[in-house]
Amino acid sequence: MNAPDKLNQALSLTREPFPASTKTYAQGSRPDIRVPQRVVALSNGESITLYDTSGPYTDPGADIDVRRGLPDVRSAWVAARGDTEAYAGRAPVPLDDGRDGERLLLELRAQAAALQRTPRRAVAGAKVTQMHYARRGIVTPEMEFVALRENLKREWMDEYGSDAEREQRLRGNPMGASLPRIITPEWVRDEVARGRAIIPANINHTELEPMAIGRNFLVKVNANIGNSAVTSSIEDEVEKLVWAIRWGADNVMDLSTGKNIHTTRDWIVRNSPVPIGTVPIYQALEKVGGVAEDLTWAIYRDTLIEQAEQGVDYFTIHAGLRLPFVPMTAKRRTGIVSRGGSILAKWCIAHHKESFLYTHFEEICEIMAAYDVSFSLGDGLRPGCLADANDEAQFAELRTLGELTQVAWKHDVQTMIEGPGHVPMHMIQANMDEQIRHCHEAPFYTLGPLTIDISPGYDHIASAIGAAMIGWMGTAMLCYVTPKEHLGLPNRDDVKQGLIAYKIAAHAADVAKGHPGARERDDALSKARFEFRWHDQFNLSLDPDTARLFHDETLPKESSKVAHFCSMCGPKFCSMKISQEVRDYSAQLEADAGMLAKSEEFKRAGSEIYIPISKA
Amino acid sequence: MNAPDKLNQALSLTREPFPASTKTYAQGSRPDIRVPQRVVALSNGESITLYDTSGPYTDPGADIDVRRGLPDVRSAWVAARGDTEAYAGRAPVPLDDGRDGERLLLELRAQAAALQRTPRRAVAGAKVTQMHYARRGIVTPEMEFVALRENLKREWMDEYGSDAEREQRLRGNPMGASLPRIITPEWVRDEVARGRAIIPANINHTELEPMAIGRNFLVKVNANIGNSAVTSSIEDEVEKLVWAIRWGADNVMDLSTGKNIHTTRDWIVRNSPVPIGTVPIYQALEKVGGVAEDLTWAIYRDTLIEQAEQGVDYFTIHAGLRLPFVPMTAKRRTGIVSRGGSILAKWCIAHHKESFLYTHFEEICEIMAAYDVSFSLGDGLRPGCLADANDEAQFAELRTLGELTQVAWKHDVQTMIEGPGHVPMHMIQANMDEQIRHCHEAPFYTLGPLTIDISPGYDHIASAIGAAMIGWMGTAMLCYVTPKEHLGLPNRDDVKQGLIAYKIAAHAADVAKGHPGARERDDALSKARFEFRWHDQFNLSLDPDTARLFHDETLPKESSKVAHFCSMCGPKFCSMKISQEVRDYSAQLEADAGMLAKSEEFKRAGSEIYIPISKA
Repeated sequence: MNAPDKLNQALSLTREPFPASTKTYAQGSRPDIRVPQRVVALSNGESITLYDTSGPYTDPGADIDVRRGLPDVRSAWVAARGDTEAYAGRAPVPLDDGRDGERLLLELRAQAAALQRTPRRAVAGAKVTQMHYARRGIVTPEMEFVALRENLKREWMDEYGSDAEREQRLRGNPMGASLPRIITPEWVRDEVARGRAIIPANINHTELEPMAIGRNFLVKVNANIGNSAVTSSIEDEVEKLVWAIRWGADNVMDLSTGKNIHTTRDWIVRNSPVPIGTVPIYQALEKVGGVAEDLTWAIYRDTLIEQAEQGVDYFTIHAGLRLPFVPMTAKRRTGIVSRGGSILAKWCIAHHKESFLYTHFEEICEIMAAYDVSFSLGDGLRPGCLADANDEAQFAELRTLGELTQVAWKHDVQTMIEGPGHVPMHMIQANMDEQIRHCHEAPFYTLGPLTIDISPGYDHIASAIGAAMIGWMGTAMLCYVTPKEHLGLPNRDDVKQGLIAYKIAAHAADVAKGHPGARERDDALSKARFEFRWHDQFNLSLDPDTARLFHDETLPKESSKVAHFCSMCGPKFCSMKISQEVRDYSAQLEADAGMLAKSEEFKRAGSEIYIPISKA
Repeated sequence: MNAPDKLNQALSLTREPFPASTKTYAQGSRPDIRVPQRVVALSNGESITLYDTSGPYTDPGADIDVRRGLPDVRSAWVAARGDTEAYAGRAPVPLDDGRDGERLLLELRAQAAALQRTPRRAVAGAKVTQMHYARRGIVTPEMEFVALRENLKREWMDEYGSDAEREQRLRGNPMGASLPRIITPEWVRDEVARGRAIIPANINHTELEPMAIGRNFLVKVNANIGNSAVTSSIEDEVEKLVWAIRWGADNVMDLSTGKNIHTTRDWIVRNSPVPIGTVPIYQALEKVGGVAEDLTWAIYRDTLIEQAEQGVDYFTIHAGLRLPFVPMTAKRRTGIVSRGGSILAKWCIAHHKESFLYTHFEEICEIMAAYDVSFSLGDGLRPGCLADANDEAQFAELRTLGELTQVAWKHDVQTMIEGPGHVPMHMIQANMDEQIRHCHEAPFYTLGPLTIDISPGYDHIASAIGAAMIGWMGTAMLCYVTPKEHLGLPNRDDVKQGLIAYKIAAHAADVAKGHPGARERDDALSKARFEFRWHDQFNLSLDPDTARLFHDETLPKESSKVAHFCSMCGPKFCSMKISQEVRDYSAQLEADAGMLAKSEEFKRAGSEIYIPISKA
């Protein structure tokens, strides 16, 4: 089997729709605004509509060929704005795929031939960012798409459940967030205009299903994928993308280093319905053979344009790492742990100069504005262990990121801010407070944070704790951590484990903030659980396959899935079953009490309707 | 292979010491106070001493035969107090092992013959609880044992790391807890006397290595094991015990239902170095064929004595579930989800009476006081889903548990309080506040709480988030949740997964509270990570086996374990390596700066020691 066939076979595995689920599309104000949703049909005739990140892959009607790329979503929207032009684009060179590029070029690029697109950029003097439009009062199709997507079934909140439940659902603690009952396109525009949310949407990523990142939207999850010099292959990477969005990745970062960077990215962007982020300095470093001191603004700038033309939606740029901050890290327990950060620190010290990212920041903004690439301002000095949390270096960089945010906004460039890292629970709130104070409510995007250092192999759990908390406090997107963190490259199952842990954290945050509608799925699952609708319980789970598998380990027969017990307690001993009996008893008690009260009432009123039998 | 041989073979697998670890014993004031500790030797010549729950099983020198039980620890301590007597004990009856007891008796009890002990109880009129002694100013060997165990290496805090690190370590937020720098036996006595901590230690559980549960001690973790009517066997249960304490269970609850309950418990208690808890109503229900209405005080009382004689250290007793609270649950989404709670609710309603646990509470206290069984006052009305969290029923029961705590304390009976369950993050603090307010600082012992409902298969993660938070807020012990929660009986790996998730939560809480010394292991691991001491990093992990396995998946060679890179970034791109280079650069810069400053200083002072070469 050759590589493409092997790839397609692997991908076909992850094209199955989720059990009892149908892909539907919410229709916007124009025919080409079609927002994907997943509808889960329940066995009691009800249904639940879920936010769906999985893209066309879970739509059985979609015709997908990874060598051709996904169907177009946004070309007409971009073109209609009349502020961009197609152009020849930068000529690819072998070095784009690293020092071995020459050798690899023919073989690998041949596979990617049908994925080449003619790039577009802003016409001279124009800015084509969602922020630019938003500030001019324009509601773009992207904004309407986001509004429909986020809004989902908020109206459900008014209809479903008892009064007490409705009240309790509204009792979340938003921790300063402003959560409207209904999300309108105009409200999305306003959030983007003031920089409190971003819609990462490079004009050259036309396959994108737009989404928003902001404190007042649902908490999002990012998954990192990427090859490496030691292991992995392009096939693995595209497979990971499809796998990651299946399990709920709202964004994917391609952190490839080493060989085939450019070609890997062609495959990923063209096949991705979610925003793709990168760290351009990784590729730039490959171009100079891994020698940080040899990096130049020219090479970096060329790399930005190369990636912007491919359609990358956001760039991690560590422009806040300034020369004077570097010595602040020397006494740290684990120094600088960000790869980008350490490269730049080395460059700064080698040249005794501020980094070219800082000195050329306005030029970078101009490039970003010409393609609508969003900033993810990197935290190159994030703490790599508990001992280094919230230190001088970390917060000095954060304050600089706040200054740069205002520069970016001057250019109408959408901006989010990256955050730590390793932070014990009692120091998490300070991170959020400092970020909000200094970064003017630009969305916060944190890695974890990990709340302890002693859990290699389980850092997805140690960090899900911190992620849930900081998500509740106002972080807009959580960068996942897999079980392989600190140990090795995540494989397919690690990616899934990391994503599920982070979907748990994000959802816990949404529920705690009191996002209208966030708890619908929980309530429906709990009802199914109480009513012994096992299939519904599985199908409403974050991971239906595993829920079903675990149940079937002890009770494999189909008859058990309608049984009013499970293997935890056995048939005689089920608390849920007894509880339903208690409910019947209570109803009877209440009816009796009502009867008695009515009888007393009538007696008091002198009525003789209820005459004790003994008197009759 | 017959069952005992098969069992011993399985157990021998888990007798391996942890890698690079040695079991040592801290010596108390008398020869028979020997507190187990695990010392991890590091490759740089340092060592780290860890709290050790694994019992004699990880001591290669210990002679262990599960058919005989563990060596005695406490008999002399109990006897020396002179307030107990040996007696014939309750005569066992076949029904103790359930309705099938008759048939199973010969075969199973034969295996347990060597595990039978002559029980002891308080002499007439005496109370033999740790609380009783504490209130009379007596520091027992158990209290000294606990002090040595908790204290561990607090003195390390004064010696280790930089000034900034020492300061940061002391910057935890104890959230109202009182954490002394050094734990003395006298301080332990005081905490037990005021009811703020318990030392579960039935006088008939002489194999016990005493431990404390209290807000001002390290956060503890409980693991549930137990057979069930549907699956499992006695062999599985003992194996799970040894496995659970290996991975850090501070307490184990035997939640067996169905067959062989009595005999299973003999095996577990006699082979357990950690406190064993039970829910006696489970066994009582078996004795009446599973019909809740047929339960009587006589049967229940007999079961309490049966279990107290066997050495159970604490009983979950749902005495706070009062008749008037039952109808409060009728409109809940998932009613009553506690097994014990639902049994009692059914009993209450069937008889239209307060439960016999409530009406006979003082008699129960007298039994507990005669054996030093601690109360774990059960939350029979805990919420089973987010929608039911913090409702009227839950808090009505909690307030009653507070009243009962004072009754128990009147009898000098040690008491902790059970808590939920399913609670969204923003409602967790209220649980802790209400518990502290109404239960007079008696230790809180919570199940999770789960922060969302949609994660079956991953509920250990959803609940570790809530557990870490409530542990930080003041909960003394966290009852673990395994990945099989809501789905089936946990197997060996599920028990481990649940425990690791909860050791993460408990440790995150200890670190956040600022327990002196809690972060020693994190700091040592992070230092090892920064210095590329891979073996040390693995060996300091909560689960060294998995950390090593994950690393070796991509870099299996031994040479990689001394390599200054891992598969995440590859050899050219390691941020840790670059960071060390930055550190060298910084040191050079500082030296240069120092030289320059000195030169300037001398110049200002008119000195000519540093003469520029050009001038010389």
